[in-house]
Amino acid sequence: MSKINLGNFFEDFTIGQKIVHPLPRTITDGDVSFYIALTGSRFALHSSDILAQEMGYKKKPLDDLLMFHLTFGKSVQDISLNAIANLGYAEVSFPNPVFTGDTVRLETEVIGLKENSNGKSGVVYVHSIGYNQNNEEVLNLKRWVMVHKKNHNETSGINQVPTFAKVQPIAKEINIPFLSNINIDATGGKYFFEDYIAGERLNHAEGITIDDSDHTLATKLYQNNAKVHFDDFMMKSTPMQQRLMYGGHVISIARSISFNGLQNAQWIYSINSGAHANPTFAGDTIYAFTEVIETINHEREDLGLLRLRTVGLKNKRPEEIETTFDENGKYLKEVVLDLDYTVVIPKKQK
Amino acid sequence: MSKINLGNFFEDFTIGQKIVHPLPRTITDGDVSFYIALTGSRFALHSSDILAQEMGYKKKPLDDLLMFHLTFGKSVQDISLNAIANLGYAEVSFPNPVFTGDTVRLETEVIGLKENSNGKSGVVYVHSIGYNQNNEEVLNLKRWVMVHKKNHNETSGINQVPTFAKVQPIAKEINIPFLSNINIDATGGKYFFEDYIAGERLNHAEGITIDDSDHTLATKLYQNNAKVHFDDFMMKSTPMQQRLMYGGHVISIARSISFNGLQNAQWIYSINSGAHANPTFAGDTIYAFTEVIETINHEREDLGLLRLRTVGLKNKRPEEIETTFDENGKYLKEVVLDLDYTVVIPKKQK
Amino acid sequence: MSKINLGNFFEDFTIGQKIVHPLPRTITDGDVSFYIALTGSRFALHSSDILAQEMGYKKKPLDDLLMFHLTFGKSVQDISLNAIANLGYAEVSFPNPVFTGDTVRLETEVIGLKENSNGKSGVVYVHSIGYNQNNEEVLNLKRWVMVHKKNHNETSGINQVPTFAKVQPIAKEINIPFLSNINIDATGGKYFFEDYIAGERLNHAEGITIDDSDHTLATKLYQNNAKVHFDDFMMKSTPMQQRLMYGGHVISIARSISFNGLQNAQWIYSINSGAHANPTFAGDTIYAFTEVIETINHEREDLGLLRLRTVGLKNKRPEEIETTFDENGKYLKEVVLDLDYTVVIPKKQK
Repeated sequence: MSKINLGNFFEDFTIGQKIVHPLPRTITDGDVSFYIALTGSRFALHSSDILAQEMGYKKKPLDDLLMFHLTFGKSVQDISLNAIANLGYAEVSFPNPVFTGDTVRLETEVIGLKENSNGKSGVVYVHSIGYNQNNEEVLNLKRWVMVHKKNHNETSGINQVPTFAKVQPIAKEINIPFLSNINIDATGGKYFFEDYIAGERLNHAEGITIDDSDHTLATKLYQNNAKVHFDDFMMKSTPMQQRLMYGGHVISIARSISFNGLQNAQWIYSINSGAHANPTFAGDTIYAFTEVIETINHEREDLGLLRLRTVGLKNKRPEEIETTFDENGKYLKEVVLDLDYTVVIPKKQK
Repeated sequence: MSKINLGNFFEDFTIGQKIVHPLPRTITDGDVSFYIALTGSRFALHSSDILAQEMGYKKKPLDDLLMFHLTFGKSVQDISLNAIANLGYAEVSFPNPVFTGDTVRLETEVIGLKENSNGKSGVVYVHSIGYNQNNEEVLNLKRWVMVHKKNHNETSGINQVPTFAKVQPIAKEINIPFLSNINIDATGGKYFFEDYIAGERLNHAEGITIDDSDHTLATKLYQNNAKVHFDDFMMKSTPMQQRLMYGGHVISIARSISFNGLQNAQWIYSINSGAHANPTFAGDTIYAFTEVIETINHEREDLGLLRLRTVGLKNKRPEEIETTFDENGKYLKEVVLDLDYTVVIPKKQK
Repeated sequence: MSKINLGNFFEDFTIGQKIVHPLPRTITDGDVSFYIALTGSRFALHSSDILAQEMGYKKKPLDDLLMFHLTFGKSVQDISLNAIANLGYAEVSFPNPVFTGDTVRLETEVIGLKENSNGKSGVVYVHSIGYNQNNEEVLNLKRWVMVHKKNHNETSGINQVPTFAKVQPIAKEINIPFLSNINIDATGGKYFFEDYIAGERLNHAEGITIDDSDHTLATKLYQNNAKVHFDDFMMKSTPMQQRLMYGGHVISIARSISFNGLQNAQWIYSINSGAHANPTFAGDTIYAFTEVIETINHEREDLGLLRLRTVGLKNKRPEEIETTFDENGKYLKEVVLDLDYTVVIPKKQK
């Protein structure tokens, strides 16, 4: 039995510990087609080599979220296999574009540990960096998960909690080609940076129903082996009574739905924070609305940034939701995702 | 809300109007694998580079229907998002082969408009042309859809209906390499042009059951965003009570089933007309039979054409259906597709 | 009707008969992504070009089982379309690696025939060889299937049964690059040949639930047209009352689950024998355990072999199963697969 890797428990982690996650992955056109089929994503930059080349890329770069899932999936076995809950993430950035043919891998450092007072679990804070085959950073993220302890009787009292930026600061250099003459006949969007105003809300028109095969195909494609997503037999004896959808898939579906209204916002600059407010299950139909939190000018004359809040809903149209919280400050049961992120969008062309 | 594209209504169209549909798409091997997995298609020309090269292609060309779906899907947002019904199509042709790596796009001209007498809707007739990255035509089609009016009180009385060829005429030049020495050990078919006779009927042997994940993966892969296919929550409050399968997927499944009996008919020359006689839903098992309407000789000594009628059935074997209409001339409830199309097939080898 | 290929019956086979199966297949990255998505497979050699190149391959070779399914699928139409049961296989070997871009095909010789005493059916024994585009062998296998007779009244009394090796012998030359310095940070496994002992049992940790879309997508991808897997309408009138999962998909799922404990055993050398002990249906959750039958040293200093028995279970965790048989020597109803195969694994590095 000892050859079976059962994942790490709270006691297995130490501050400063470095973990090289196995399973480097060469990303291919097969993965890209899967992502489109699984999410219905229509951001044109990721669908057309011609459009990408007109923008100065060698070919279409990967959708940032597809790269995220493929890279991040590797950390599940080592970090969160015994997670009670994925509590949060912060400072998620996408320093360099990834293309098909690239091989991505992930490394993690433990940056915080906090034992829970019940002695049964603790929170592990990690900083993970994804690299391509040239050792260029393609993903940089921090997250914290609550994991089981092996030994419920001994306590360490460890309580070392790092601090995180609430919002990822915007760099002077943004690794995106110069966005002149963006072809809006191709992107399908006529709105530019200057057209959005803080406080504006977009009720996206589409809804997408997710089935069991879809979300389990997604999670298996990402080689993310968290049992809650795959093992219906096990889940039947839990309060959920069924497989739980990978939260990342919900993010991707909400992002795909947000296309209608944000067609030109084809780059995710950062994910500042996110909450999976309620679980999502097969059969649920996802809707979404987006609020513009802030419009962020940039010294580059060709682009600006929008800090957005995209809220994913299940089985409820966005027009029917005014506020996402009930009178007690708790998320409404229809809210499945509350994502704070920053996108890059071209400025109007002179 | 104004940034959300809610599609066009009858009043938004004018005769002669030209629409450049967004979302050019670079087609990849991922799309090809998906098409095989979604339909079970076995036409050998589209599965083997070696076979295609023996025939004079640089590599395996795309299945005509896969190209159709990927190209056509782009027009949904602009033409048929508010469609009450897709009424028909005609003169669908495939002027040039498409290969993986090609980038396809679609442009449309409005060629007819007819307001319905109830003042609530109208029919829009369009002519769409798909191009590859070299501006070569790869798809040419006409179709008409009934769409909602925005304003039910004002009427325009517009009534300009184009005429369509009942059957696409056969050109002297057919853009297919010279079909000598076709390898029937590879195609799996031993029948050639001369073996088929008008009036002959083929009851295809296979049946394929379609599930929700399959048909929604297909439609999302094609970036076709018609809500009826994806949004189960919305559809539950309609008479259908569930998601409606994309008609194009039913065509592909019927074509895949027709392989057994038409193995060498690997090229669709045209789709002359088609009716989606009844809706198809997840769980339905599709069967099909094909009638040879006409055998069409061609001056090329290596190939001829067959005008075919392939009928798709749900949950009923073809042997059990003699005629597709009831005594009132209405389609039997088991008939889901009635497709009139022309295929190219090699002549017997001397 | 005569143009419809209804497959071969017992009387259609003769000893020494050679069959060239149609449908050569060019394997692509799309197929590879599908395999990962369908099975969740994590063997690193098949996911990373970089890792494969470090080992001396030109790029990542195909998972042996994916190649098996894509090649083997071609024989169904000719050999087993009218099969009552797939009785067994033996001497399955993988002589050369296959890469994306390769085109595989399959040829078969009939090596045995045995009419059943009831006069209604018989057993056909075949030897199939898969080739790549350079006519190199990539698959070599023997199998036997029980097929229907056309004529139940005439009997031939034919009874010519070949013998099979119980275990594929190990060759002196193994077509795998020299495995020095295998990067266990990449493979995720820290155990080598010397770490395994005969009699050892690994209860794999993961379980994977399979849905209808998954297993039918898999079988359609493989262009395997056995009706029992696709045609739910037909199956509803059988004792099974639903589509039967392709046994090969169960093998792939079990192999994927066996990753956890066998991470470095990335090459299947042979499949010695296998039993699909009970049928698998959509909704079943597959678990697996593996017993090390024998550790087989090899004169190459860099690798050894393990003869393994991987048992696939449905809806039962491996810890809860001690023996796979009941008191009458029958398989327990939870056992779906009993696979005897040999894998290659690196030796410890000096």
